[in-house]
Amino acid sequence: MNTLKDRAAENLIAVRRNAPLIHNITNFVVMNVTANALLAIGASPVMAHAPEEVMELAQLAGALVLNIGTLTREWVPTMIMAGQAAAIQGKPVVFDPVGVGATRFRTDTARKILKEAAVRIVRGNTSEVHALSDVESNSPPGTKGVDAVHSMEAVLDGAKGLAGRSGVTLAVTGPFDVVTDGHRQIRVANGHPLMQRVTGTGCMASAVIAAFAAVDSDPVIAAATALAVFGLAGEMAAAVAGGPGSFMVGLLDALYGMTPEKVCEGARIEGS
Amino acid sequence: MNTLKDRAAENLIAVRRNAPLIHNITNFVVMNVTANALLAIGASPVMAHAPEEVMELAQLAGALVLNIGTLTREWVPTMIMAGQAAAIQGKPVVFDPVGVGATRFRTDTARKILKEAAVRIVRGNTSEVHALSDVESNSPPGTKGVDAVHSMEAVLDGAKGLAGRSGVTLAVTGPFDVVTDGHRQIRVANGHPLMQRVTGTGCMASAVIAAFAAVDSDPVIAAATALAVFGLAGEMAAAVAGGPGSFMVGLLDALYGMTPEKVCEGARIEGS
Amino acid sequence: MNTLKDRAAENLIAVRRNAPLIHNITNFVVMNVTANALLAIGASPVMAHAPEEVMELAQLAGALVLNIGTLTREWVPTMIMAGQAAAIQGKPVVFDPVGVGATRFRTDTARKILKEAAVRIVRGNTSEVHALSDVESNSPPGTKGVDAVHSMEAVLDGAKGLAGRSGVTLAVTGPFDVVTDGHRQIRVANGHPLMQRVTGTGCMASAVIAAFAAVDSDPVIAAATALAVFGLAGEMAAAVAGGPGSFMVGLLDALYGMTPEKVCEGARIEGS
Repeated sequence: MNTLKDRAAENLIAVRRNAPLIHNITNFVVMNVTANALLAIGASPVMAHAPEEVMELAQLAGALVLNIGTLTREWVPTMIMAGQAAAIQGKPVVFDPVGVGATRFRTDTARKILKEAAVRIVRGNTSEVHALSDVESNSPPGTKGVDAVHSMEAVLDGAKGLAGRSGVTLAVTGPFDVVTDGHRQIRVANGHPLMQRVTGTGCMASAVIAAFAAVDSDPVIAAATALAVFGLAGEMAAAVAGGPGSFMVGLLDALYGMTPEKVCEGARIEGS
Repeated sequence: MNTLKDRAAENLIAVRRNAPLIHNITNFVVMNVTANALLAIGASPVMAHAPEEVMELAQLAGALVLNIGTLTREWVPTMIMAGQAAAIQGKPVVFDPVGVGATRFRTDTARKILKEAAVRIVRGNTSEVHALSDVESNSPPGTKGVDAVHSMEAVLDGAKGLAGRSGVTLAVTGPFDVVTDGHRQIRVANGHPLMQRVTGTGCMASAVIAAFAAVDSDPVIAAATALAVFGLAGEMAAAVAGGPGSFMVGLLDALYGMTPEKVCEGARIEGS
Repeated sequence: MNTLKDRAAENLIAVRRNAPLIHNITNFVVMNVTANALLAIGASPVMAHAPEEVMELAQLAGALVLNIGTLTREWVPTMIMAGQAAAIQGKPVVFDPVGVGATRFRTDTARKILKEAAVRIVRGNTSEVHALSDVESNSPPGTKGVDAVHSMEAVLDGAKGLAGRSGVTLAVTGPFDVVTDGHRQIRVANGHPLMQRVTGTGCMASAVIAAFAAVDSDPVIAAATALAVFGLAGEMAAAVAGGPGSFMVGLLDALYGMTPEKVCEGARIEGS
């Protein structure tokens, strides 16, 4: 019987074995910790945003991450070109719409990337997913900066609708996480509140999802198993942390020390 | 009797309660640690430098930080626009003139920002404040990179003069800190020498000042109480650190674990 | 008898005494940890990439680091201008060709910088040095992202040839390191495999080489002694690390706590 826990453990093993190259066009705040999270889990990161090299990197990479945390206008065409190049190569594109809803510029850009960059998986907190769903229905935004202010229940219907309309898989993170493609739905209960007190944990989760998507062609399973493993590492880090500084140290150590056995024992993941 | 220590404790409580959004246009070296310092103290950071969104962020944010550590020409108009937008909203602007005096470009830009960006508080080391004061009197610069080479005594008269002329509050940091608006003067004796052996502690201090200024309308009190709390966290981190790596970890943990009681006990802050 | 170990200890002392200003034009991923490594070893970092200030910084700085990890086209002329300005001042230029060989853009740019930026020392992993050597002979590239996939033996002849033709010193890092100017060759056996599981250790090594080159005019000796000290710090960090998170913390602590005695005892460095 191949349970979701087993699948999580298998994906971890596959990432370690294949060490997929993950191409990140991400924000300046989290470049370092994102690269370190990918190295710790066993993937190989490359952070590169020059338009001249995204086509070649799409051939080398197993997946692409697009993250608009410190967005400027100049990066948008490169992100779209990179997404399309990845899609042509059959590589999954993970989109992290950081702060969408906070400003018109972010909302417009996120909408554009979602439409044009061949996105397969979106990872956002409840407020970001709410804003992205709202975008489609032209409702007013309601995000304060990059923090989540909506409940999972309040955004899930919108998320399913967006997934159904756009064909992407949505990974909504919060006190618990939900991954849905509009039809299937998986709930992940791993994680720890300290993850909200360190910058970049959401961005790191998006990158780990990309690493799992590089070895598992089912985007719902890839995203859910990645979130379970990442959240479990967060629990292990929180158990020994004295605050957010030592938590980040412990999170990288826990990702590095993660084993299939720990995943089978600690992953809390269920759904269809 | 409302002492400065009480005020420091009250400001910490207010930051924790209100979680003000702090908008940072800052340098690439410190973006991550600055965001983490703000999260650890209880504020909510947003790092964004796109000209398209600074007007909206000024409405959402409680304060703005401008930091020229990795300055390029293109960022200057955005910084000035953001400062003016914040001022229109009545939000305080904290300016960190990293490395001013080291190059003509930095000196000219710092002068321009000070004149045009509606700055309310400047936080710099002694050499930076010396260079900024000199700017006004057109004396030659004397800074080596971003390190302080002047004594507090040597720069304090110039700082008071600059504060009086420009209407800004100056927070001069060093072995001890002095905050002055040209009339009042508060001395803060918290801190630890290890803070000089980690990059970004000055920039983090500027951001914490912004968080305190978002909840305390008196810029002199806000800056001084923020420096006392930040310096006290530095002392607590140094007490358990084995070097600059573990010091930075401990600094974030100490900011996160700071309490009004610890502030009342440990803050060393006096003046009028 | 002045052995290489003695020279390593002397260079450490000289860096601590002179605190040379090291000007870094480097990538966004590693700016923070590079600045911290330089501070920890006793140097004074400045990270600046504005074309307006590179000429003045060349006068202030003891050495320059050029690193193309997150290269964009706009930075290339600034890097070349900075290199030429440093050379005019007699200051050594250390070039870190991150990911050269992975894309045509990186390969072309690395070739251009090597020809035009007055580079004195190149620090790269085996695959990067292989690609850079290949560049000269117009062979096809063979790098996957920024990871090394070649053996030291396979690249050393090419490295010597490149060093001889171009007049630069090559510092090739891997399970063991080799520094050569085409004639002399020094082998450094310090280091630890965990250094490959943290982003930026190669970039930090390049910066520490620059600090040593600022106090030792022999580029082969400067690079080799810097790699021995940096690798030794890595061994000390690994001895107490629980994974890559705590390893990075320990690495900065170990650089800060390094002493001439520890260097004389632990440096494994030999050659002519």
